[in-house]
Amino acid sequence: MRKVDTLLLNGTVVTMNDKRDVFSPGAVAIHGAEIVAVGTAERISSLVEADTVVDCSDRIIIPGLINAHTHIAMTLLRGLADDLRLDVWLLGYMMPVEREFVSPDFVDVGTRLGCAEMLLSGITTFNDMYYFEDAVARATADVGMRAVLGQTVLKFPAPDAESYDESLELCRQFIAEWYDHPLITPAISPHAPYTTTEDILKASSALALQTNAPIHIHLSETALEVRDARRDFGHPPIEYVETLGLFDAKVIAAHCVHIQDHEIPLLSKHGVGVAHNPSSNLKLASGFAPVLRMRQAGVAVGIGTDGPASNNDLDMFEEIRLASFLPKATTGDPTALPAPEVFAMATIEGAAALHMADVIGSLEVGKLADIVVIAQEGPHATPRYHLNPSNIYSHLVYAAKATDVRDVWVHGRQLLRERQLLTIDLVDVRRRAAEIAEQINAFMQEREGSLLNKTLAIGGFEQQETFEVQVKVAVDDLEAVEERLRQCGFPVVKQSVRQQFDTYFLFGGEERRYLRYREDNELTGGEEGPFPASLAVHPSYRLSLMEGIHERVYQNSVILSRSRYTAQATYSLRFYREYFAPQAELEIVKWRNRYRILFQETELAVNFDRITRPQHMGTFVEIKSRTWSASDAEHKAQLISQLLDRLGLEVDVKGEGDYLRMLEKR
Amino acid sequence: MRKVDTLLLNGTVVTMNDKRDVFSPGAVAIHGAEIVAVGTAERISSLVEADTVVDCSDRIIIPGLINAHTHIAMTLLRGLADDLRLDVWLLGYMMPVEREFVSPDFVDVGTRLGCAEMLLSGITTFNDMYYFEDAVARATADVGMRAVLGQTVLKFPAPDAESYDESLELCRQFIAEWYDHPLITPAISPHAPYTTTEDILKASSALALQTNAPIHIHLSETALEVRDARRDFGHPPIEYVETLGLFDAKVIAAHCVHIQDHEIPLLSKHGVGVAHNPSSNLKLASGFAPVLRMRQAGVAVGIGTDGPASNNDLDMFEEIRLASFLPKATTGDPTALPAPEVFAMATIEGAAALHMADVIGSLEVGKLADIVVIAQEGPHATPRYHLNPSNIYSHLVYAAKATDVRDVWVHGRQLLRERQLLTIDLVDVRRRAAEIAEQINAFMQEREGSLLNKTLAIGGFEQQETFEVQVKVAVDDLEAVEERLRQCGFPVVKQSVRQQFDTYFLFGGEERRYLRYREDNELTGGEEGPFPASLAVHPSYRLSLMEGIHERVYQNSVILSRSRYTAQATYSLRFYREYFAPQAELEIVKWRNRYRILFQETELAVNFDRITRPQHMGTFVEIKSRTWSASDAEHKAQLISQLLDRLGLEVDVKGEGDYLRMLEKR
Repeated sequence: MRKVDTLLLNGTVVTMNDKRDVFSPGAVAIHGAEIVAVGTAERISSLVEADTVVDCSDRIIIPGLINAHTHIAMTLLRGLADDLRLDVWLLGYMMPVEREFVSPDFVDVGTRLGCAEMLLSGITTFNDMYYFEDAVARATADVGMRAVLGQTVLKFPAPDAESYDESLELCRQFIAEWYDHPLITPAISPHAPYTTTEDILKASSALALQTNAPIHIHLSETALEVRDARRDFGHPPIEYVETLGLFDAKVIAAHCVHIQDHEIPLLSKHGVGVAHNPSSNLKLASGFAPVLRMRQAGVAVGIGTDGPASNNDLDMFEEIRLASFLPKATTGDPTALPAPEVFAMATIEGAAALHMADVIGSLEVGKLADIVVIAQEGPHATPRYHLNPSNIYSHLVYAAKATDVRDVWVHGRQLLRERQLLTIDLVDVRRRAAEIAEQINAFMQEREGSLLNKTLAIGGFEQQETFEVQVKVAVDDLEAVEERLRQCGFPVVKQSVRQQFDTYFLFGGEERRYLRYREDNELTGGEEGPFPASLAVHPSYRLSLMEGIHERVYQNSVILSRSRYTAQATYSLRFYREYFAPQAELEIVKWRNRYRILFQETELAVNFDRITRPQHMGTFVEIKSRTWSASDAEHKAQLISQLLDRLGLEVDVKGEGDYLRMLEKR
Repeated sequence: MRKVDTLLLNGTVVTMNDKRDVFSPGAVAIHGAEIVAVGTAERISSLVEADTVVDCSDRIIIPGLINAHTHIAMTLLRGLADDLRLDVWLLGYMMPVEREFVSPDFVDVGTRLGCAEMLLSGITTFNDMYYFEDAVARATADVGMRAVLGQTVLKFPAPDAESYDESLELCRQFIAEWYDHPLITPAISPHAPYTTTEDILKASSALALQTNAPIHIHLSETALEVRDARRDFGHPPIEYVETLGLFDAKVIAAHCVHIQDHEIPLLSKHGVGVAHNPSSNLKLASGFAPVLRMRQAGVAVGIGTDGPASNNDLDMFEEIRLASFLPKATTGDPTALPAPEVFAMATIEGAAALHMADVIGSLEVGKLADIVVIAQEGPHATPRYHLNPSNIYSHLVYAAKATDVRDVWVHGRQLLRERQLLTIDLVDVRRRAAEIAEQINAFMQEREGSLLNKTLAIGGFEQQETFEVQVKVAVDDLEAVEERLRQCGFPVVKQSVRQQFDTYFLFGGEERRYLRYREDNELTGGEEGPFPASLAVHPSYRLSLMEGIHERVYQNSVILSRSRYTAQATYSLRFYREYFAPQAELEIVKWRNRYRILFQETELAVNFDRITRPQHMGTFVEIKSRTWSASDAEHKAQLISQLLDRLGLEVDVKGEGDYLRMLEKR
């Protein structure tokens, strides 16, 4: 009789070995970190003598589940923002909060919280990508879970690095520190092709080959990403990174939703593992990954939860079930991806996707003892059929729940006993998580309550207080006034013809702040007037946070206005609309003949505006000038009044010198 | 201070009233069967004095969830057969087992098991369709749950009725007995257009109008159903039943996956409620229901689990989550069906779909006290954000689990307390369920182990022992022999030309039984020989269970063979293949010129067979005759020998007179 540490006895043992042996009643013996015997209860009982015997009657013993893709510390951002488009969610919520809050302490709490949830869902190994991955590693090793941990590398500043050189240096240190740890596999995570550069990808690959560390990267998650990659790199993402030699390393590619047919062989040829994330792909509307075709081509496809902020949990049983459902519905074939196959994806095939199938993923002698025991006592686990070998997988995939998980061992050490976490103080973790969440709540509430903060949160804004002295005069015969201006013979510094599409976001409240999104199309190559189609259009986009309050009103209704923040609008109008969720929206479209003239040696802008939307709003002459001091403003207001006289214009819009107010009054 | 029975105090109250009020901390007061107060904890505490106060701190109080479509007693068939095509699953497994096992006792156990699972998942009302619905009603009322219960009506015999007249009479009695019960709403369930007749649908409608009972029916679940309905009824299913006046009644339509654009207004016009079943539609590969478009048209769409045999559980939290995910993925818009909307579908809109929105579905004064309390103590419920009104729905939809349900009241009575079922003896129910499952296990094992039983299980077979005396002779010049036969001048009873496609299913084992699926195409309108395309083809399909053992071998290798069961093959080859799952399959295709001649006043079949698949197998003359006694067989064997002589044929295939054996030997 061989002495062993622990014997799991009399459970139904689902081995996930090559032959897919199921032993019922079966037994698994653990000694040290390893599985030393697996088989029928009768045989194993006769072979070993155990210090501890765990009665697993009426329970199922399975290999620990493998979560092939997550961002574990984002547990702390769970439920912060949902039902948003990816860019609004990421750029408007996740990244601003991450910039503000993500720290080693944040990551430590988030990791422990995530580990608790994963252990309670039967996960023993996870593949992560986040910031401060060293802190993730310390927390994970402390809890005792197994993980592949990818330190993120981005082309822009990250919470843990100012530049990608710094990130790569962090990767190097991280790998050096953890490469021989029994639980942690340090990895390099260039985030995705669209958030990195060719240099980053090549450097990541080189570092991976030098250190044997795996690379964990997002590839072809959305249709947009693929379209942009074709435009920017001349290849779809997978083909692109392959040409850069990335696949010479051991790669784990997350998502692969919009993968092109010819790219699948690239994955199989290079042994790239894929992490399929069904909940995330549905919730973020990314699409349906071609799991069947990838697997047919011999690609190892594991199953991941993705980050809990886009899921919103770390429940592998939900993912397994969904991974089985989706190919059935998309192919119309209910026999597609049957229960035994999808369960393999969550265990042995997930291990292969992580390049770890030699040590985990199945209950076999010599493998590491990552083992989960599942109860079958709920009504949902009743009754049980044993007509054919697939019945047990049917139960595990279609009916079992994360909350059926009872016991978990990782590396031979018990981490969960009868759903009690043995290495995590959940009360303390929840308290720390709640504290951070309250800070984020407060930060977000302030931000959401303040248009300024919300504007600044998405970045790119210059804090630039711009004062303008201006007047608008409604005129019927715009061309006559323009002709008069030309006849005056003032020096013209610049002249242009533009079509401007202004969208105003209104928010109510007393502040009267509003946002203006301007698409400003300058037309070149022709004269003023109706524009032949051959004219070139030069669009520019700007977002400005405006103050609706007029600072002063001078004679002739010349007003002093202020716009405080302005930025090049790098996102779409749609993005801003969804991000700012204005109470109301107004649109003004106009043709503008713009002159910059010198009038008494001062530069003034004279705009001839023909408003085309809304209809019947009219035609206007606008004269304005930037200003920097009260006396300068006074002076320019006088100049404008003089120019009005020269042009024979009389102001009749009392103190309402902006189009938005005119429109609101209609 | 008003005296009340129970006060749920200090929870976050998600009312689902029209204004979607959320009170945090809030309170709900129950008196008798009704909700008598809802509001902030502070206000309600000052209004009522309760016999029992339930502390709901850190918990969420929601309206009981409404499961809009199920077949509750099918809990007992959970996990029996999965990953099969709908016809194989239904015709090959569910219906044979139901024919054998479904009884009032079966239904009683299955209902109690289902009620236990549903209460543990926060469901307070369900909409059912099954057999012996009176037994479902008794068990449900005994448990104390609320339900709409539909007695099934089918055009073919059901476990509880020999004919549809009987079923309709059962409906009538069922309604008469239960119409005024406080918990049970009896309903009429014509199963679906394709399983009923115009008469049944009209009679159901009439009975519904007469009794005010709702109608619960499956409509447009699969693409095939819609195609067949167009062919058979001249309309897609929804249009079809509308023309029959079915929608004059209060209708709950399950599935509506393949609904045509013009049918959506028919649903809204008649106030038909829809039950959307996301898991079932995915798992059975039915497709994606157009939930957004139906809701946009004003149709009340509830969420259902469908029967647990096609799900495989009764977990509304899984369904809610999935119901939210699917429209996002299919439209590519992650803002589609946001959390607050989908949560409404599971509560107040589900109530409307069941025509019960006046009494259940929200926490409002005067409504029935169907209330669920949810804990938020797991790691998956951490942290919590309260930035905007949708955060609480995000938590409920995307992160909460059925196992977070703590307490349930139905009709003012507590049925679940801290996850303890108060009205169900789960140990006893599980024991009874296990007993029935063991009987089904045994029945199925015998059936699966015996090709004969498995063949008989799908029905349509005649037990018909057919003995045939036969011989096959390989000949090179088939036409010469055929010419010789004609020259002999035997009376020809019948002559035909056929192309026969025979598929053999082989199962190994000692019995040497096998199945032959024959597509027999008779060609008419031309002479023998190569067939012009204009010839008519008359196909027939037969499935035969064959005995590979030759009963006797006579002189000249004339053999006596036996085929025991034969049936018109009403399903497709694909169906049989998936249902029988043969170990191996062989195909033989041949042209056959078939003569039935009178030889010495005995009818013999003489077949001239040219085998075209597999190639190079050759051409054969086959002579055979049916026989009914040993002496008759002996006599006919002699006649066949004589005819062989007359045709100048010598037998060289020793004792191997069937094509399958020849093929197996190759």
